[in-house]
Amino acid sequence: MKINDNNYTAIWCEEDTGNVFIIDQTKLPHQFEILELVTLEDFCIAIRDMQVRGAPLIGATAAYGFALALQSDASSENIQKVAEQLIATRPTAVDLSWAVKRIQKTISELPQHEKAEVALVEAHKIRQGMIDMCEAIGENGLQLIKECYEKKVDVVNILTHCNAGWLAAVDWGTAIAPMHKAYFADIPIHVWVDETRPRNQGASLTAYELAQQGIAHTVIADNAGGHLMQHGKVDMCIVGSDRTTSTGDVCNKIGTYLKALAAHDNGVPFYVALPSSTIDWQLTDGVNQIPIEQRDVREMTHMAGLDVNRKITEIQLFENSPAANYAFDVTPSRLVTKIITEHGIHEASEDGLKVARR
Amino acid sequence: MKINDNNYTAIWCEEDTGNVFIIDQTKLPHQFEILELVTLEDFCIAIRDMQVRGAPLIGATAAYGFALALQSDASSENIQKVAEQLIATRPTAVDLSWAVKRIQKTISELPQHEKAEVALVEAHKIRQGMIDMCEAIGENGLQLIKECYEKKVDVVNILTHCNAGWLAAVDWGTAIAPMHKAYFADIPIHVWVDETRPRNQGASLTAYELAQQGIAHTVIADNAGGHLMQHGKVDMCIVGSDRTTSTGDVCNKIGTYLKALAAHDNGVPFYVALPSSTIDWQLTDGVNQIPIEQRDVREMTHMAGLDVNRKITEIQLFENSPAANYAFDVTPSRLVTKIITEHGIHEASEDGLKVARR
Repeated sequence: MKINDNNYTAIWCEEDTGNVFIIDQTKLPHQFEILELVTLEDFCIAIRDMQVRGAPLIGATAAYGFALALQSDASSENIQKVAEQLIATRPTAVDLSWAVKRIQKTISELPQHEKAEVALVEAHKIRQGMIDMCEAIGENGLQLIKECYEKKVDVVNILTHCNAGWLAAVDWGTAIAPMHKAYFADIPIHVWVDETRPRNQGASLTAYELAQQGIAHTVIADNAGGHLMQHGKVDMCIVGSDRTTSTGDVCNKIGTYLKALAAHDNGVPFYVALPSSTIDWQLTDGVNQIPIEQRDVREMTHMAGLDVNRKITEIQLFENSPAANYAFDVTPSRLVTKIITEHGIHEASEDGLKVARR
Repeated sequence: MKINDNNYTAIWCEEDTGNVFIIDQTKLPHQFEILELVTLEDFCIAIRDMQVRGAPLIGATAAYGFALALQSDASSENIQKVAEQLIATRPTAVDLSWAVKRIQKTISELPQHEKAEVALVEAHKIRQGMIDMCEAIGENGLQLIKECYEKKVDVVNILTHCNAGWLAAVDWGTAIAPMHKAYFADIPIHVWVDETRPRNQGASLTAYELAQQGIAHTVIADNAGGHLMQHGKVDMCIVGSDRTTSTGDVCNKIGTYLKALAAHDNGVPFYVALPSSTIDWQLTDGVNQIPIEQRDVREMTHMAGLDVNRKITEIQLFENSPAANYAFDVTPSRLVTKIITEHGIHEASEDGLKVARR
């Protein structure tokens, strides 16, 4: 997708040199910086310090980090060490260990001198797989936007929460993918972008991504969505999911549940776009079974932005009061209109999701 | 209530000198500064620039501004001019014009040389009336907390949104008044304080007020309340209302509606504390009849706090994306468990509110 009118993906490997590059997402939206990742340490820092974030992108980054680290030493000992080091950077990221283990398995029976090369080919495949999956989610979600547009014959207003865009994937994104597809299909859309406190990924990343692409949008406070829905200003919500139960409960950025309640109260369709890999087939009750991570309260008490000299500055919003920072919440399936995966559009239920189990 | 272990109200007039003082609320929570208001211009700036905010406090401030301005010139022309100048500072503030008109009426038949003195007496009465009203709201709300505590026999967790505390009133507050009363009655409470974007009055003012008083509390993102309610961590919500319909719909800070939906979905009582003066007896349908103010988008794009040198600094959070800043939303009466006024505890309905019409 576009930044400064050039096309990018969130990670890429130059064909001729084999060099790997990412966009440093800790600097967005204020500075656009491309980083080359060379050493294993570079890859680990990129994942740990969230220069790359989002499940698919973390997976692809780990895949390249793993492959490149084998070029100097593809011994069994080093393979094991590198795998552990990468997985330790964000232990709860499912796609990370999935990608590392997939490469480990692929090269396990090969002679040592072939391992590095095949690992790199596998990393390319993992990256391309992420892109294809997100594009399929986009195509499937596009149908829902198209149907809405055909009925309304006017701009389709879509509300989204957090950033489930191409910056969080490798390309296209998950929740945002249908919006990119609608844009390319010349369907007029306008996106209400939730600021998404405390980390502000909506105002920082989703808004940036849409602005760079030229998709009409407006940043709003997380508090505003209910009011907009009461007044017919939202035609549908599309959000992502970090973890999904087999029964269709979705665990996404904190505040998603509140928007789903408002959508339900106002008859606004609430769609959740997700890779089928986020579905945990063991889980049946999201609210009671999914543990909710509490992150550093500094994300509540401090905020970064540009000062008057356009220097990135951090300020403290308050002190002398304790804060809590719950990172996710669970939206029960009864509030989810449809789930969009790379396999199609599903009812948010055990029956509905069965077809996504391939 | 307490700041730095001294007792304050949000506006006071020294008995011996007749000098009027306020707390500059634009500096809170970072700096505690007392301002003396002397000229009419001082009072107008205080109201317009929100050094004082909150309906009762604005009313009391306007009352003193009016009374003091008559000391040098109590001619009919000046009375009219001063009244217009004060009302123009915040034209939509109901308590402001109410206070000014009340004094105008009281002094209208008096000889010119008595007007200034009687106006000041009336200003004192208006201020004391605000305090008594808020204390009555506190006493009535205390009953609901007490009942909850008697059942639970454990800390009562109360969620509140925005700042409807003593800083917004003259003393006690509206939504916060029952919490102060519970604190004085030794009922153990803990308050979940919504940050309340975009103006952050929860994190800046409610948290400050509770911390200074010594009431246990935790600041959370506006997105977090639903999750807390799903997990039984909220026993009741108490919020304020800026405008209330005769049928019990309440118009309060943007995001209140989302919390009411979550409370309803989880069987958590949702109480709204308000002065009966905020009830507009002409209105019957809040969502359709109450116009929602859109404020400067700068409140969305910029934020102030302390930099590393503890200097109040403003940063820009994002640029190149449009933003919208809806200030209030309407919570329909069907989501309101009870309305607390200075007259008692009422059903949120036309019948229930009738007794508050005195």
